[in-house]
Amino acid sequence: MAEQPELTIQGWGPSPAGHPADAAGDRAAGLEEALPKAARRHLARELGWTPRRTPPVPVPEIRLTPTRLPEPTLAALTALLGEENVRTDRESRLLRAGGKSYLDLLRRRAGDATDAPDAVVLPGTTEETAALLALCSVHDVVVVPFGGGTSVVGGLAGVDPDDRPAVALDLRRMASVQELDVPSSMVTVGPGMRGPQLEEALGKEGLTFGHLPQSWEFATLGGYAATRSSGQASTGVGRFDDLVAGLTLATPSGVLEVGHPPASAAGPDLLGLALGSEGTLGVITELRLRVRPKPATTSYEGWSFRTWAAGLAALQRLARHDLLPDVVRLSDVDETRANLLMSGGTGARVLRGMLRARRHGEGCLLVVGWEGLPDIVRARTRAASALLRSRGGIRLGHSVGESWRKHRFGAPYTRDTLLDAGLMVETLETAATWAALPTVYDAVRRALRESLTAGGRRPLVMTHLSHGYPTGASLYFTVLADRDEELPIQQWLNAKRAATDALLAAGGTLTHHHAVGADHRPWLEREIGPLGVEVLRAVKSRLDPKGICNPGVLLPD
Amino acid sequence: MAEQPELTIQGWGPSPAGHPADAAGDRAAGLEEALPKAARRHLARELGWTPRRTPPVPVPEIRLTPTRLPEPTLAALTALLGEENVRTDRESRLLRAGGKSYLDLLRRRAGDATDAPDAVVLPGTTEETAALLALCSVHDVVVVPFGGGTSVVGGLAGVDPDDRPAVALDLRRMASVQELDVPSSMVTVGPGMRGPQLEEALGKEGLTFGHLPQSWEFATLGGYAATRSSGQASTGVGRFDDLVAGLTLATPSGVLEVGHPPASAAGPDLLGLALGSEGTLGVITELRLRVRPKPATTSYEGWSFRTWAAGLAALQRLARHDLLPDVVRLSDVDETRANLLMSGGTGARVLRGMLRARRHGEGCLLVVGWEGLPDIVRARTRAASALLRSRGGIRLGHSVGESWRKHRFGAPYTRDTLLDAGLMVETLETAATWAALPTVYDAVRRALRESLTAGGRRPLVMTHLSHGYPTGASLYFTVLADRDEELPIQQWLNAKRAATDALLAAGGTLTHHHAVGADHRPWLEREIGPLGVEVLRAVKSRLDPKGICNPGVLLPD
Repeated sequence: MAEQPELTIQGWGPSPAGHPADAAGDRAAGLEEALPKAARRHLARELGWTPRRTPPVPVPEIRLTPTRLPEPTLAALTALLGEENVRTDRESRLLRAGGKSYLDLLRRRAGDATDAPDAVVLPGTTEETAALLALCSVHDVVVVPFGGGTSVVGGLAGVDPDDRPAVALDLRRMASVQELDVPSSMVTVGPGMRGPQLEEALGKEGLTFGHLPQSWEFATLGGYAATRSSGQASTGVGRFDDLVAGLTLATPSGVLEVGHPPASAAGPDLLGLALGSEGTLGVITELRLRVRPKPATTSYEGWSFRTWAAGLAALQRLARHDLLPDVVRLSDVDETRANLLMSGGTGARVLRGMLRARRHGEGCLLVVGWEGLPDIVRARTRAASALLRSRGGIRLGHSVGESWRKHRFGAPYTRDTLLDAGLMVETLETAATWAALPTVYDAVRRALRESLTAGGRRPLVMTHLSHGYPTGASLYFTVLADRDEELPIQQWLNAKRAATDALLAAGGTLTHHHAVGADHRPWLEREIGPLGVEVLRAVKSRLDPKGICNPGVLLPD
Repeated sequence: MAEQPELTIQGWGPSPAGHPADAAGDRAAGLEEALPKAARRHLARELGWTPRRTPPVPVPEIRLTPTRLPEPTLAALTALLGEENVRTDRESRLLRAGGKSYLDLLRRRAGDATDAPDAVVLPGTTEETAALLALCSVHDVVVVPFGGGTSVVGGLAGVDPDDRPAVALDLRRMASVQELDVPSSMVTVGPGMRGPQLEEALGKEGLTFGHLPQSWEFATLGGYAATRSSGQASTGVGRFDDLVAGLTLATPSGVLEVGHPPASAAGPDLLGLALGSEGTLGVITELRLRVRPKPATTSYEGWSFRTWAAGLAALQRLARHDLLPDVVRLSDVDETRANLLMSGGTGARVLRGMLRARRHGEGCLLVVGWEGLPDIVRARTRAASALLRSRGGIRLGHSVGESWRKHRFGAPYTRDTLLDAGLMVETLETAATWAALPTVYDAVRRALRESLTAGGRRPLVMTHLSHGYPTGASLYFTVLADRDEELPIQQWLNAKRAATDALLAAGGTLTHHHAVGADHRPWLEREIGPLGVEVLRAVKSRLDPKGICNPGVLLPD
């Protein structure tokens, strides 16, 4: 297996092209390389921001508290897993301190890793994991499963109301393909495997998995399952949930095998209880996933709509007639303008000229992607294109689509550069029915603007629709603002609270694919009701009576 | 709303064409009308059976025990719901005694309805249902939700380990369309609504729901949700589960609202816990369902394969390449032969001649159905047909497909006639991965044959594959045998036990779409494990602490 890139302690991973790990000084200087001049000017004007160098504290200066694991506990862990699989060294702990939300990065960049786990443990099998959880129950040690470490909602917070010692349970030793059942289109894998490794293994058989979230280079399959992830092609291939045929969950009370492919009517769906459990019920130690043949054809293209409303209406019609493409992303005016400015180059200039000539201004960019058998892709594309055109869409061609595809994993790298230059950068997402989407869109933008406008500062809120369903779609918001260097955490928390209250009031879901984590749990009860929370507590009490499994997330205190 | 046909007390409903309710004497005489001579001869030869008249006990002679509801309880129910919505008359109770499994019918035909509910209650709203459940908790009264009464797995058994009085909670007062959200392709309905009424309401808007199980004329939408039903077009439109965007569950502990369309990542899936809960957690009082435009094209056709294995292999390839039709049903040799004999007529004779000429013998009949936009249906049909042909399939044309479609709801009516003539008739179903399907098929047939062959009797086991998935498919077995008039119940229980043990051992699921009910619950632990059962118990304890909700089903004692 090829060498896997690693996320850095204070930011996203090193890009294939550069971004050397933790060389933050270089990155700040690199703002001019990362953004074309027009984009920098646009941001400065929109935000009331002047670029400045705000590099993170050097890694050797990050504060870490001594491990709180008592010696007998450490000895018991070592006896179970072997010395090499129980780690308390500084680097191991720093690398598993929290995830990659804006709040996580603020803390790590400020030199604070006092929330790091007390040790990192690496079980190798389901049985070892179950034994480990039983042992931690006895020793009163909190267990936080750690896959790729890419959570953006505080999913790895490890906060315990009883302040017990905590270990990060790293999945990387359980990262192989265990069985490939080609006739049944299923593969059995360990939870620590990442997307690129899975695609590499499947590619040799002419197969693909096709789950491509922005975190694809780093996130693990177990993490996707625990958080109900959704990839960029989910409109076609389905959410991660839809791709899980079964899984094994090791809990402090024993091992659960859930899911019976292809389908079963034998009672309530226990697989759906394990998916999205975010480590609070135990640790996913094996996954049975659906795979498919590599598509014979893939076709990505760009379209433009004059307004957001016109684009939304067109996509709703596609959804209604089962004509949604495999990939669908509609950017609003603010995101389209920013993307065109950021991509720079001749292509973007030509495109803007063309759109102006057709009175679209910069318009709203739609990227669609089709995959499958050529004849069927052709029939679907033709029917969908006719509908898009009848609703005012202008076809921009393949280069726009391919350009999006090429840069699909890029945003988190750019974030590091923007953070170095004094910006607040964060995203949030939701989903709503087609009927409620326009209201949710307006409500979230208004809440963010009201919260983040103060003393000459103004936010830039960019939105796209992605993940289309027959009944609705998700909305993804990217927020930029001049960072309040005195109260940066409070600045974002206020904005997030306002946006979340607004989206729930307007009928949006708390989260479409980022999960609950620590950040959303104050609102969980508003989504599933007090009795819903009680049901989850009842399940947790049965499987994790000591409450050692990731206590800081999902369920409100 | 049009008058709704009702199921009879001792059999299936009156067919549109006749089958007058409870006129069993007429039916027995009607065996000759129901089956062509060749079919009767075939059955007699295969089964070692001689047709005889075995009519059910006349309805007025059916035994019913006096209601056990104490006067104060009855008064409290009446105070809550009004006198007209609390019924203890003989006919109301008889009509809600159990479901329509072979065992149910044996009991009812023998004149035994001592398991009938003590009363029938009819709440009209979610609030009334929640209040009713709270009241029944206080008064220690078991509640069995009653939709269409079509369960074939003892889902309405009402058996209580503590032998408390029981009421059937009839859903029929909650049977209207409450909201239609056309842009979001969703409809909100009461659980007592039936398929034909829903299609009638949607048809006016150019929409359809498309869930068409064999029980379609009688079963309710609430019942489909509680049992994880699957319709004949589920390969295309999805299982009933897939069509539920959300629902309201009234429980003794309060009301749960679950499901957030289009999708949410906010924790485990509580909607999946309510689906398939079979009344053990409470009563579904509202459903938010996905609808779709009426298909512009529908096309049904027949194909033939020389062998079951060849047909299976072809369908597996279709599944793998995402080319499965919306309806797919492959009959094995035994079912194909019986169907051809039973349908009789010139068409069937011509068909048999044609197949013989092409050395298919009678072969294995495949029915496929396509629905959707004409261009896309054409592209899918062309690709799938090429694949079927390359695997040895012979296209038989539309008349065979249309003939199946016309008779799709007919089998349960024929069952009544066969029961009248001294036969045992029952079905069972499972699902397995494509890799495991051949083994499961062989194992179930062997087990049924071994169990039902004795003293000159031999069973006829007919099988079809339906409901295709990327990972596998379901198998549906129809079993006929000369009925053992001395121990008819034991005859079937032995066969059912042997078949269920065999299919579980071979890797099949306990049930693909009939649910668990009373009949399958001894095996539930084999499918979901002891810890899985404990999780369900924990949820039930939280929502139904007194255990009044349908205690006789799903969870083992």
